[in-house]
Amino acid sequence: MKRKTKTPSLIHRTTCKVRFSEVDIMNIAWHGSYVKYLEDGREDFGNRFGIGYMDIYHAGYKAPVVDLKIEYKKAVGIGDTILVETRYVHTEAAKIYFDYIVYNEEGEIVITAYTIQVFLDGKDQLVLQNPEFYTEWKKKWNII
Amino acid sequence: MKRKTKTPSLIHRTTCKVRFSEVDIMNIAWHGSYVKYLEDGREDFGNRFGIGYMDIYHAGYKAPVVDLKIEYKKAVGIGDTILVETRYVHTEAAKIYFDYIVYNEEGEIVITAYTIQVFLDGKDQLVLQNPEFYTEWKKKWNII
Amino acid sequence: MKRKTKTPSLIHRTTCKVRFSEVDIMNIAWHGSYVKYLEDGREDFGNRFGIGYMDIYHAGYKAPVVDLKIEYKKAVGIGDTILVETRYVHTEAAKIYFDYIVYNEEGEIVITAYTIQVFLDGKDQLVLQNPEFYTEWKKKWNII
Amino acid sequence: MKRKTKTPSLIHRTTCKVRFSEVDIMNIAWHGSYVKYLEDGREDFGNRFGIGYMDIYHAGYKAPVVDLKIEYKKAVGIGDTILVETRYVHTEAAKIYFDYIVYNEEGEIVITAYTIQVFLDGKDQLVLQNPEFYTEWKKKWNII
Repeated sequence: MKRKTKTPSLIHRTTCKVRFSEVDIMNIAWHGSYVKYLEDGREDFGNRFGIGYMDIYHAGYKAPVVDLKIEYKKAVGIGDTILVETRYVHTEAAKIYFDYIVYNEEGEIVITAYTIQVFLDGKDQLVLQNPEFYTEWKKKWNII
Repeated sequence: MKRKTKTPSLIHRTTCKVRFSEVDIMNIAWHGSYVKYLEDGREDFGNRFGIGYMDIYHAGYKAPVVDLKIEYKKAVGIGDTILVETRYVHTEAAKIYFDYIVYNEEGEIVITAYTIQVFLDGKDQLVLQNPEFYTEWKKKWNII
Repeated sequence: MKRKTKTPSLIHRTTCKVRFSEVDIMNIAWHGSYVKYLEDGREDFGNRFGIGYMDIYHAGYKAPVVDLKIEYKKAVGIGDTILVETRYVHTEAAKIYFDYIVYNEEGEIVITAYTIQVFLDGKDQLVLQNPEFYTEWKKKWNII
Repeated sequence: MKRKTKTPSLIHRTTCKVRFSEVDIMNIAWHGSYVKYLEDGREDFGNRFGIGYMDIYHAGYKAPVVDLKIEYKKAVGIGDTILVETRYVHTEAAKIYFDYIVYNEEGEIVITAYTIQVFLDGKDQLVLQNPEFYTEWKKKWNII
C-alpha cells in the first residue's frame, strides 16, 4: 500500500559572495545586507521552480514582502562565500512563506530567517483567496 | 505621597526621505530599505541620548544587531517623507531593545519593527552581564 | 540699452547625513555612496525647479544618467553632515548636465562630480532634439 | 635580436547577476549599482593576481578610489547576467588604474568605466612614491 507521504520540501541553494560594499565598519557583513542575500535566494528559488518575480507579475500579481524576520548567529566578512538555503513552507493562506538558513564556508549557521509575501492584484488590492496560478503551481509541485 | 511611576519611555523621532535609489521596480520603497531607516532612527536616538554607535565603541564595546523583525503595513514611494519613531524598551538582559513605528505623511503606520542588539567586548566575545557603562546609562535616564 | 547677460546659474544646496550603512571598512563613506548623495542633490534641485524625475516622467520622458564622473578629495565618516551643491550647466544638446560640489562641515571640498542625462521617449528611444517641455523649462528659468 | 614587447595586459572576467534590489523604478539596473559591479570585478581581479584589498592592507596600505568615470551604453534588467572585464592599466605614478567593460549576455557593451586608486600609508597619508610591495607586484607580473 502506498502510504501518503508528507508534503515534499522544495529547497534551493544559492551561493553569494560578501561584497566589499556590503561590509560595515566592524568588518562584518552589515546586518541589512542579508535582506539582499535572502532576495537572491528567493529569486533563485523562483527561477528554478517557476514562482519568481516575473512569473508572478505575468500572472497579473505582485507579491510584496509583508513580514521579515532575521536572527543573526555568526558574522561573515569581505569575500566570504555564503550558502543561502531557501525552503518553501506550505500554508493554506494566500501567502508565500519562505524559511531561510544561511551557512558560512565551514557549514556553520550564519543567520536564520523567514519572509512572508502576500498577493496584490492589478489594482494593488490585497487578494484574500489563493490566485489560480498559485494553486496550479502548488499542484504542479505536489504541494498539498 | 509620591507614587512610584512606571519607567518613562525614551522616544526619538526622525524624519527620512525615500530616495530614488531606495525604490524598487514596483515604485515603492524596497523592503530592505527600511533597515536603513531603522538604523537612521536608532542612530538619531543614540546621538540624542548618548547611546550611539560611537558611545558604545568608546566604552569598549560593539553592539551588533542579532534580531530584526519588520511588519510592512503600507507602501511609500519616491520622495515621500517618513517619520521613524524609535522607542527604547527596557529589558533586564544585557541587550538593547528598540521598538519602531514608521509613519507616512498622513500619520498612517507604514511599518512596525524591532531590533535587539547584544554586546561584544574588545575581543569580540559576547557579554552576558550588563556592561557598566550601560547600567550607568540606564540610571542616568531613570530606566529601572 | 539692455545688455545681454550671462545665463544665470541655477543652484540648489542639499544637506545629507552619512549613514552607518554607507561607511566602508575604512570607516569612511564608501565611494559608491556618493552616487546616492548626488541623486539626492539632483532630485532636490528637480523638486525646487520643476525638473525632477516625476516632472520629466509626466512630460512623457525618462532621463537616465549616461555619464557619471566623480573625483574624491576628502573622506567623510559616520554621522558627518555633507552639503551637496547641485548646479545646472547649460548645453545646447538634448541633455541635462549637472555639476556637483560636495562640502564637509568645515566647508572643505569632499568630492566634485558631474552627471549627464539624455531623454528617452515613451518607446524608450533616444531623443535627439530637445523635448518641448525641456525647452519651455529653460525659457521659464531664463536659460539661453 | 629580442624585441622589447608591449606590456602584457592583465585582464580578469567576472560574471554578476543583476539583483531585484539593484533595479530602479525604470526596471533597469540603477546607475549607482554599477559601482558595485566594478568593485566585484576589481576584487576578483585582485584575488586572482594578488592585489586585492586584503593584500594591500597586509602590506600596510589602503588604496581608496579617487577617480571614477562611467559611461552608460545599454540598460540591463532584473536577473540579467553581466560580464565585467577588468583590465589593469600601467602607469608610472603611485596609482592603481583599472579600465572596465561590462557586457550583457549578447556580448553588447553595457558600460565602460575606469577607476583610479591612490595609496595611503598607515597614518592615512598619501604616498607619492610607488610602495615597494607594488613595485614587486608589477615585476612579478612583468609589468614595466
